[in-house]
Amino acid sequence: MKANAAHIEKVFYSDKDHSKTLNLLAQCREKRIKVYKEGQERLNLLAGTSKHQGVVALISDFKYRELAHIIDAWKMSGEKALILILDGIEDPHNLGAIIRSAEAAGVHGIIIPKNRAVSVTSTVEKVSAGAVEHVNIAMVTNISKTIDELKKEGLWVAGAEASGEASLFKSDFNCDIALVIGGEGKGIRHLVKEGCDFIFSIPMKGKVNSLNASVSTALVLYEVVRQREWPLQ
Amino acid sequence: MKANAAHIEKVFYSDKDHSKTLNLLAQCREKRIKVYKEGQERLNLLAGTSKHQGVVALISDFKYRELAHIIDAWKMSGEKALILILDGIEDPHNLGAIIRSAEAAGVHGIIIPKNRAVSVTSTVEKVSAGAVEHVNIAMVTNISKTIDELKKEGLWVAGAEASGEASLFKSDFNCDIALVIGGEGKGIRHLVKEGCDFIFSIPMKGKVNSLNASVSTALVLYEVVRQREWPLQ
Repeated sequence: MKANAAHIEKVFYSDKDHSKTLNLLAQCREKRIKVYKEGQERLNLLAGTSKHQGVVALISDFKYRELAHIIDAWKMSGEKALILILDGIEDPHNLGAIIRSAEAAGVHGIIIPKNRAVSVTSTVEKVSAGAVEHVNIAMVTNISKTIDELKKEGLWVAGAEASGEASLFKSDFNCDIALVIGGEGKGIRHLVKEGCDFIFSIPMKGKVNSLNASVSTALVLYEVVRQREWPLQ
Repeated sequence: MKANAAHIEKVFYSDKDHSKTLNLLAQCREKRIKVYKEGQERLNLLAGTSKHQGVVALISDFKYRELAHIIDAWKMSGEKALILILDGIEDPHNLGAIIRSAEAAGVHGIIIPKNRAVSVTSTVEKVSAGAVEHVNIAMVTNISKTIDELKKEGLWVAGAEASGEASLFKSDFNCDIALVIGGEGKGIRHLVKEGCDFIFSIPMKGKVNSLNASVSTALVLYEVVRQREWPLQ
């Protein structure tokens, strides 16, 4: 739990005696890991043995990449960089849909934070329609530090925010770029936003003043795709 | 059921004697209406009376508009027409997300078919983040006939399909337009496709060769929004 909480999908615990696991369950709640109370038999089945201590964790076997691997993938491609930074997506359906769109848009990699965000769970894999297998995803502890590293590599860092004055369609993405998308409802965190070179927004013509996170991410990614073929005049 | 199946969200039936309702339940299954077996007490509660015949239907009170209303809304707006035709979206989450994006993109109306598609259920309303209240949605029995009517009004009809040779980003949408989006997986039906003036596709750069229906619809809608401000050169 301490070393690898991000890889834990679910925790099952014994309905018999969970006084010993109370502290563990509190940690699970804090890290937004779902917990399920189970009978002894099912717990034995899940563990594959009866010799356990009343707690079974389901671990994701998704293989995260290093940031360096993503940077290499870009450099090897001979293309302009397109890297997606997700600053706190919490809904597995949104993350899955985003990964699917990002793969279709040809990103070199996706960066997600270790804490306060959903990781690549089995639901995410399913919703991505298999795209997780074809995209480099790095999980980092500090998004701001990652942004600094990408800047050192010569990338521009652009954040999508409703408050952004520049329109998505007027912002120049025809360069090596990392796009930052905030979490559902909360947007990009203050410190991360400060690391962005510029902030832009998606024009809204209606009364409901926001889009679904996976929809807005796709719009941004595809504007980059479009501009690379037809640069802004 | 015969007159207004599209407005029925759910059907609850008695667990006591449902020999009389078998035919009805078969019809529900055919029309993709969810059915739930319930005890007598809960059924009385749902019906608000014990004087029912063992079946209770939950009806959606969403107010659909006429096609004429959508055409009027466009003409009154003084804008170029932007009408969305959904040829068989089945997933309420997709329909809700599409309505949300369509409202944000400023469509004059959305047209959905009466059969073989999800209608505006409470799930759709919820997922749309309230956007259903601000968009005109018409439910029609015959999409092909509706396309003919829109053409008579001077609209161009463009279909989004993976098979489309023209790129989304090269197709001219800076005119009065109706966009046709097909159902998940199945795409636009043959006859409806024949009614389209042109077919275009979204460029795909990855290995998973499709996008989520709500994502691709948003990409298409926003390309229209973009082109109206920055027409193709």
